[in-house]
Amino acid sequence: MVTNITIPQTGRETRQLIREGKFRRPTSGVAPHFVQANVAILPKDVAFEFLLFCQRNPKPCPVVEVIEAGQVEAILTAPGSDIRTDVPLFRVFKDGKMVDEPDTLDAHWRDDLVTFLLGCSFSFEHALMANGIDLPYYGTDRNVPMFITDIKTNSAGPFSGPMVVSHRWIPRDKVVRAVQATSRFPQTHGAPIHIGDPAAIGISDITKPDYGEVWEQGSADEVPVFWACGVTPQAVAMASKPELMITHSPGHMFVTDLKDEDLAVL
Amino acid sequence: MVTNITIPQTGRETRQLIREGKFRRPTSGVAPHFVQANVAILPKDVAFEFLLFCQRNPKPCPVVEVIEAGQVEAILTAPGSDIRTDVPLFRVFKDGKMVDEPDTLDAHWRDDLVTFLLGCSFSFEHALMANGIDLPYYGTDRNVPMFITDIKTNSAGPFSGPMVVSHRWIPRDKVVRAVQATSRFPQTHGAPIHIGDPAAIGISDITKPDYGEVWEQGSADEVPVFWACGVTPQAVAMASKPELMITHSPGHMFVTDLKDEDLAVL
Repeated sequence: MVTNITIPQTGRETRQLIREGKFRRPTSGVAPHFVQANVAILPKDVAFEFLLFCQRNPKPCPVVEVIEAGQVEAILTAPGSDIRTDVPLFRVFKDGKMVDEPDTLDAHWRDDLVTFLLGCSFSFEHALMANGIDLPYYGTDRNVPMFITDIKTNSAGPFSGPMVVSHRWIPRDKVVRAVQATSRFPQTHGAPIHIGDPAAIGISDITKPDYGEVWEQGSADEVPVFWACGVTPQAVAMASKPELMITHSPGHMFVTDLKDEDLAVL
Repeated sequence: MVTNITIPQTGRETRQLIREGKFRRPTSGVAPHFVQANVAILPKDVAFEFLLFCQRNPKPCPVVEVIEAGQVEAILTAPGSDIRTDVPLFRVFKDGKMVDEPDTLDAHWRDDLVTFLLGCSFSFEHALMANGIDLPYYGTDRNVPMFITDIKTNSAGPFSGPMVVSHRWIPRDKVVRAVQATSRFPQTHGAPIHIGDPAAIGISDITKPDYGEVWEQGSADEVPVFWACGVTPQAVAMASKPELMITHSPGHMFVTDLKDEDLAVL
């Protein structure tokens, strides 16, 4: 346990502290406005089909960078990084079952592993907040509510399954702005998937999320809005029960050198 | 030679005429506002690395759809299509040398071939014209000027090389609009790569394009603007001298069922 908690201000600083064993906490709120990524590591023999799954489902699975088999450095978005040591906490799954939650991959690394870094919602949440939309869980240890929908993803090889969405209450007079602000960030899930009617996408009870915690409606003027969620590719990959799969532990992301605005399309 | 030339109005109609042998011409101007795609077909053993090359270079290599090995139908963007028969003219390359220019792939198809459909500039050219920017070659048998730059692409496996750009003269008072209008279409090359100084990206003589035909400056108020070009992935793949590679013949594109606006991000 460290006694003096340092909040790193850049991606590089965050990765350095993690590598030195000085930062083993969730990364929400660190390195403000640096792009954080979900991590999915799979054997090379399914890498083409997983990349294809992401290409076919860019809203839930926006690819920030892929680290090829035999490599450990995200050369484009985090030069000098080492994926084996630069994530605060990992989860290791064999045949779909969690077998370890280590802070480095020393005991699990293989030269045939391909690392996928996938966009996460932090960047577009900054955009929502900058537009005056309050996110009560942000910067707390609570999590956004997430739901399994009846929207099918486009399958590829062994990868298929329903889309998972995150849910946010948006004041009615901010809904258009929320669409505009998040459309600028297609690599962090982009525009909403649905506005207004949970039942229309297979959600029967908005008070019972499948992941994360419920967010209670604040007033009758708030509209439920749903965005594609990065839990989708992890859930889909896990459902295929790969012989080995490694992910970040929830909330413990890989922090890149990119800034949010680097990902904005307009 | 057909005597009555029918101009098909939809992607499906275009593909049907091509399949019946009734359309063997360039596809510029057909099926207005339907998305047309560049075609690159490669053996499965380099498919992951080629898809990764595209992911790492999304401006020159925007992936519209990938048809997996053993499949011939673009199920997402052109249901009912057959890539072997639905392109007006192909080129077949062995070890980097053109060996055939057939109108079907009957003699060349193999079950290990993966088809990449890549965005082409037609969609964003419609956006430029809709904003009052004149493209003198459009709808003629002339072609846009293209240049090999000194901008390096991000390599993947055997795929590396310089970025190829297309060049357009834009009236000075329309340059901002040209950036805005094309930014909406990241899957068809998106915003410009460079504005104003050909030498800054390694172009020594604007009157001597490496591909296509020169476009002479109309007045001193016109600014040279450069966009990433779909010739890049073909040139890069060819330079790796794959044992077999099949492309569309220049100008003879695959026409999908998508409309231009389906690809707009905002």
